[in-house]
Amino acid sequence: MSQAVPAAAPAASAPLRIAIAGLGTVGAGVIRLLDTNRDLIAARAGRAIEVVAVSARDRGKDRGVDIARFAWEDDMTALARRDDVDVVVELVGGSDGPALACSRAALGGGKGLVTANKAMIAHHGLELAALAESSNVPLKFEAAVAGGIPVIKGLREGTSANALTKVYGILNGTCNYILSTMERTGADFAEVLAEAQRLGFAEADPAFDIEGVDAGHKLAILAAIGFGTRIDFAGVRINGITQVRAADIAQADALGFVIRLIGEADVEETSEGARLLQRVRPCLIAKGHPLSAVDGPTNAVVAEGNFSGRLLFQGAGAGDGPTASAVAADLIDIARDEVGAPFSIPVASLAALAPAEPGHRMERTYLRFMVKDRPGVLAEITAAMRDGAVSIESLIQQGRGVDTEGAVMVAMVTHEGPEAHVRRALALLEGSDSLLGDPLVLPILAG
Amino acid sequence: MSQAVPAAAPAASAPLRIAIAGLGTVGAGVIRLLDTNRDLIAARAGRAIEVVAVSARDRGKDRGVDIARFAWEDDMTALARRDDVDVVVELVGGSDGPALACSRAALGGGKGLVTANKAMIAHHGLELAALAESSNVPLKFEAAVAGGIPVIKGLREGTSANALTKVYGILNGTCNYILSTMERTGADFAEVLAEAQRLGFAEADPAFDIEGVDAGHKLAILAAIGFGTRIDFAGVRINGITQVRAADIAQADALGFVIRLIGEADVEETSEGARLLQRVRPCLIAKGHPLSAVDGPTNAVVAEGNFSGRLLFQGAGAGDGPTASAVAADLIDIARDEVGAPFSIPVASLAALAPAEPGHRMERTYLRFMVKDRPGVLAEITAAMRDGAVSIESLIQQGRGVDTEGAVMVAMVTHEGPEAHVRRALALLEGSDSLLGDPLVLPILAG
Repeated sequence: MSQAVPAAAPAASAPLRIAIAGLGTVGAGVIRLLDTNRDLIAARAGRAIEVVAVSARDRGKDRGVDIARFAWEDDMTALARRDDVDVVVELVGGSDGPALACSRAALGGGKGLVTANKAMIAHHGLELAALAESSNVPLKFEAAVAGGIPVIKGLREGTSANALTKVYGILNGTCNYILSTMERTGADFAEVLAEAQRLGFAEADPAFDIEGVDAGHKLAILAAIGFGTRIDFAGVRINGITQVRAADIAQADALGFVIRLIGEADVEETSEGARLLQRVRPCLIAKGHPLSAVDGPTNAVVAEGNFSGRLLFQGAGAGDGPTASAVAADLIDIARDEVGAPFSIPVASLAALAPAEPGHRMERTYLRFMVKDRPGVLAEITAAMRDGAVSIESLIQQGRGVDTEGAVMVAMVTHEGPEAHVRRALALLEGSDSLLGDPLVLPILAG
Repeated sequence: MSQAVPAAAPAASAPLRIAIAGLGTVGAGVIRLLDTNRDLIAARAGRAIEVVAVSARDRGKDRGVDIARFAWEDDMTALARRDDVDVVVELVGGSDGPALACSRAALGGGKGLVTANKAMIAHHGLELAALAESSNVPLKFEAAVAGGIPVIKGLREGTSANALTKVYGILNGTCNYILSTMERTGADFAEVLAEAQRLGFAEADPAFDIEGVDAGHKLAILAAIGFGTRIDFAGVRINGITQVRAADIAQADALGFVIRLIGEADVEETSEGARLLQRVRPCLIAKGHPLSAVDGPTNAVVAEGNFSGRLLFQGAGAGDGPTASAVAADLIDIARDEVGAPFSIPVASLAALAPAEPGHRMERTYLRFMVKDRPGVLAEITAAMRDGAVSIESLIQQGRGVDTEGAVMVAMVTHEGPEAHVRRALALLEGSDSLLGDPLVLPILAG
């Protein structure tokens, strides 16, 4: 399983020579880190790690680091063809395009690859890992999941002796910043999003984050490593946070919960074989659960092993410093020759599991309806719950003022029951002209 | 830096053959884990991990696992001489004696060594690591610190690209169980200790735990890896939890704090060179700090890196399952040939730092006096504070009833000031017949 550094690499005391593709904030951060911590990195890696060449869109841009000392390539794929490069560091982003071309060229050409590109790994990670394995070169992507938190290493190596029962966590800093700020300030989603964009905690185009796609990419990667399964991003059920209102957060708070976007994965045995459940959704989390205290752009991942018990890894989920820390840790592993199968076991041995159908799973659920303020609405909703066999634990109807359009909010928490019952009950309400918009359905995180 | 598996080891697809010295709950747990997770371990390690021989005090004892299938040695050092063993797993415990003899024999004889023995590593880790390096065999001890949490790996590899500014955490599950139970129940130390012993959360002889020695062992190991310094257990300043009263916990709670035993280490530059500060002491921790929510026998370690920012690793700090998980993760690393210098950099390169003198460090401090209930006591204490240049932020004198001997409690929190000032003020009170016993001095954890 152990993989050597590239065949062309010189003896162990010679520097590890890297090329960096992409010089945005993370690329500049990697250069700054390698400069700042040069001596300790050389001591820990057993040899120097030296940038020899870089590539980006704009050569002249001021990045706060001196790049004139490095060779320059206009075409980043050319980095992968240089004889003086052992490892290409891909920090361009995007699941396809130049990032993928450069990565394929590097691995296919016998160079190692370190990347922070979650979208590319989620979509093409198996192809790239197979290429790395056949070329006998390292492929590492610690920075692709949860920024500076060594959670890929945590799952690949830290919990390697365990059958994991579950992996879950807070995987998107933008969503966590928005939800915890809504909680703290009482402001509504759109307002907090705008503020987050102004402060740099959200992209100008925030769709990938707030719709849960980014968390889905990361979850698919964690699930593959944690459960030894082929990456299946298409199999991730994704709900974002755009439907969460300030009133939901207030209601959750009154009930003893916070709302966080959670990615969770597990494997279940069925009569038709093992099935992989992967989903990203806002959840209610009981105050006191370790994830309930995770505020701002912080990420946190919980892995539950059959011997280790519950392990929590927490830290900065993004930012140039933490991301550079993860990229450089991968480089040190490579310099130390401590690399192996990118997904813990060889790609050919990863199991191809069909997605699990979670309808039979037992959950407590928070349901929120915006309804017209007229007689009979509550009876209509509660009848649907009864007919769907959903047992209501508590229900609150708030008066006017929740919405400017004269709507009122009906929120309830169900007793534990099969998820399918909730869906069945909601199907009974579909098309009802009492309801304004789709109801919000948030599970209550167990344990 | 990379180290090969033992020279005698067969090709990569052959099993990694291990011998286990010590078959207490952890030893039996390792056997149970290797049995239960056999297939996934073989897949992840790239080859089977097989127990070939064991040794313990009593061959006939029922351990819940079948050991008849393994070769038996009465003398555990004989395990290290067997030709059919690649790695010895030392789970005997004790800093010296048979554990050390067996470990020296293994490493000196060209076998790898995996150990959960914090006391032995704290006292003899450098000698053993030097032996491992000269024999070119692995020495790994993930299980020695924080049970199942991969924090040795986290510091050695996860934060390897960072200069750490600080490492600190909750390193002793017994103390954390006692303090958080005192907090929850209001019971006093002795009562909770007795209960912890009954439940198996504390040893029959709890001195090593409650006096902070065990946490000191672990801290010394973390500091060496985190800061690249020679292990200096003798340099750890240690205060245990035996002086903490229920009334202190209640007082801390009223002020917005919990009390936890914290080990912390950092390096400071002085005009006379770098100095290593290591200490273990009960601290007040603001509610809301990630460590304040760590209850029961859980451990948690925070590492602050100059690029990664603050990282938190949390999980079960002890128990046969978590400890076995860490031992087996080390074995998988060895089977994968992903091992290197035990302390991240070679022993010869570790810096020998003198202990730091923390008197100039700025801290807020909680001070508690048990005093005679008579006029003038408060004036005496506050005068000493004034003369020591300690500025009092808040002070509470509790009436009678705190103590059966007619004592009253005076508790105060100081403004931030040099630690030496507090010591100076307390020196002024030494020998005062107003005071009943030594005052309790607890720092308030910053940030």
